[in-house]
Amino acid sequence: MNGVTRATPEQQLEVFRAGSVDLVSDAELLAKLRDGRPLRVKLGCDPSAPDIHVGHLVPLDKLRQLQALGHQVIFLIGDFTAMIGDPSGQSRVRPSLSREEVARNAETYREQVGTVLDESRIEIRFNSEWMDRMSVSDLIRLASHHSVARMLERDEFRKRYRSGVTIGIHEFLYPLIQAYDSIALEADVELGGTDQTYNLLLGREIQRAYGQPPQTVLTMPLLEGVDGIKMSKSGGNAIGIREPATEIYGKTMSIPDRLLAHWVTLLVQPDWNEVRELQAGVESGSGNPRDLKAALARRLVERLHGPRAAAEAESHFDRVFRQKRPPDQVPSQTLRLEAGRGGVSVAELLTRTGMAASRAAAKRLVGQGGVRIDERRIEDPASELGPGEHLLQVGRRRFLRLSIEAGSPR
Amino acid sequence: MNGVTRATPEQQLEVFRAGSVDLVSDAELLAKLRDGRPLRVKLGCDPSAPDIHVGHLVPLDKLRQLQALGHQVIFLIGDFTAMIGDPSGQSRVRPSLSREEVARNAETYREQVGTVLDESRIEIRFNSEWMDRMSVSDLIRLASHHSVARMLERDEFRKRYRSGVTIGIHEFLYPLIQAYDSIALEADVELGGTDQTYNLLLGREIQRAYGQPPQTVLTMPLLEGVDGIKMSKSGGNAIGIREPATEIYGKTMSIPDRLLAHWVTLLVQPDWNEVRELQAGVESGSGNPRDLKAALARRLVERLHGPRAAAEAESHFDRVFRQKRPPDQVPSQTLRLEAGRGGVSVAELLTRTGMAASRAAAKRLVGQGGVRIDERRIEDPASELGPGEHLLQVGRRRFLRLSIEAGSPR
Repeated sequence: MNGVTRATPEQQLEVFRAGSVDLVSDAELLAKLRDGRPLRVKLGCDPSAPDIHVGHLVPLDKLRQLQALGHQVIFLIGDFTAMIGDPSGQSRVRPSLSREEVARNAETYREQVGTVLDESRIEIRFNSEWMDRMSVSDLIRLASHHSVARMLERDEFRKRYRSGVTIGIHEFLYPLIQAYDSIALEADVELGGTDQTYNLLLGREIQRAYGQPPQTVLTMPLLEGVDGIKMSKSGGNAIGIREPATEIYGKTMSIPDRLLAHWVTLLVQPDWNEVRELQAGVESGSGNPRDLKAALARRLVERLHGPRAAAEAESHFDRVFRQKRPPDQVPSQTLRLEAGRGGVSVAELLTRTGMAASRAAAKRLVGQGGVRIDERRIEDPASELGPGEHLLQVGRRRFLRLSIEAGSPR
Repeated sequence: MNGVTRATPEQQLEVFRAGSVDLVSDAELLAKLRDGRPLRVKLGCDPSAPDIHVGHLVPLDKLRQLQALGHQVIFLIGDFTAMIGDPSGQSRVRPSLSREEVARNAETYREQVGTVLDESRIEIRFNSEWMDRMSVSDLIRLASHHSVARMLERDEFRKRYRSGVTIGIHEFLYPLIQAYDSIALEADVELGGTDQTYNLLLGREIQRAYGQPPQTVLTMPLLEGVDGIKMSKSGGNAIGIREPATEIYGKTMSIPDRLLAHWVTLLVQPDWNEVRELQAGVESGSGNPRDLKAALARRLVERLHGPRAAAEAESHFDRVFRQKRPPDQVPSQTLRLEAGRGGVSVAELLTRTGMAASRAAAKRLVGQGGVRIDERRIEDPASELGPGEHLLQVGRRRFLRLSIEAGSPR
């Protein structure tokens, strides 16, 4: 059996399709499945952003299902282009990475992915393996297989071209290199978010031009961030899968109700029955979104940190936000005043304890009404605090027990 | 002195400018000339079309003048891209050449160029020298220095893009490689036809991006072919500098009167006084274009084949076209009929003697009224010719004395 499933090709097709946005094409995929050999399923990873967030769970869950069917999952790390970065220097989107950073980020990927997939059966590959050896003539030949007009049809490029935003000619080469990776890997299937559709289809075309059977393209829906915009670490609206349990719980509780149905649909697992029931209740008008959100948050934390952490995160959240009390476990710090000083301003306090990144940030937090000391809102960042025990709260979820000690005379 | 002229920078600038269309820029060039060192002057050559035609005399004359000032002329042979050809296979414009063909064509260039320039002081370089060693990363970096929008501003690309004619992405790389050649050669000046303006200016930009002083761009006017369209061998409207004297003379006489002034302006040499006088006469209305054309044709042949060939070509032309008589020297051939045959059709005759490429071509020539036998126009390609001496004429300038002999019985 060699790990290959007993499921029929038709049953397998259903697994591929479930929850996907697009599959190109059913007939081709069925023919490949009928061959009976494990298919090579590629997922491209950006080594410059190695932190996996819950949005990534959507493709990762699909890969786990395909792994369970006996197929070979390949993580393709685009280190070659990451090491070049954006040579034009006009964009900060693609910083240049060193070989060491790439290796470190790849290891990070492997660890994180292990929480969802069978890590021992993942193939991790780097495209520098073939790109470092490619000659300029080979790249020119590769570039000849696609046209300028077709490349400009791509959504991102079309918008930039129309609005006069510079597109460097090298940017036309990156999708071709990504497509060439499919040739080097002999990918049977490539998986990606819907924002990758153009690139994945280009892979089919380039494989055909090089005499390889075109890969099946499988696109998955994108999860919005907590603010409704595409989830990304750089967008500041992501929930990282390695964030603390209380953060994951709290951020999930903060998503707007209008996003809730989509989040549940994309993240729900087969055994989350109470989540399904609550969703049905919300849809019929009998249930309330808050309970559904709490169930989703608990299950998400449970999945990523285990049941105990989930229970703790829930009780922490309830204590702080429902009962408006500080949580059970609050970190503590001691601050010793310099000799001769009787107190410290709130702005300085926030900066010295690390609750604010700078004096300016501290003042902004106070101005926004986001700082409480001993459960009283602070209005003036210059107001002073003397020796004693204090409970500091920044925003809704960050607490610190602070012990201020008088400085000893020298 | 090392061959460097005593002319002042200002005098030299005048030599550069004379007869050119554009020079970018005067100030930069003057600064370079004031340095006093010989400048490196690049001319790019296409190794897939090594036959030099009289249109090329325009830039070559300019190079000779710059050589005389002590500057270093460099012929850059674009063998790297010529060996790739057009990999998309969608165009016949760029056939792929072998290394041997490139070397042979380069030698052909050298020989032909020797008729105009001091051959011993030409540097001939091949861009495979640096392009074979370039890595894909280097090419990506090169490509990052120019934008898609700017490339599409180029006349040829803009027209093709607008009219929906495919532009392969590799075609965006060729001008960048041509520009990079200027860096590798450390070109101070690049010379080219006005159709090369975009590429030459791109060279400046790329040199700047790589920290090199930008080359001076010097564009020369293009000579129209004998039909008024840009002269090119593939266009079938060129006069090759190695064609026989009678061809050069005859083709020059065939150019339309409306092109004559431009031809004279571009090709006239300092000592062609009678040509200048005749041109002044035509312009004032006192002279006639035919005499000017004849003077130009004679001087052109004289330049390329010497004075004796010029005199012979002139008398040949006069005999055939003015006096409508066959020329002095007509090649002859003997044709023996197969045993038992009493004659041969005109179509067969033309094919067997090589005056037509095929039966179909022979019939077409007859149909166009272009075939005369014994000074009589032939109207039926099937008409037979028996044994005897005949004068065969195809078109205006091709003659053959034909001796048809009866076949001996076996």
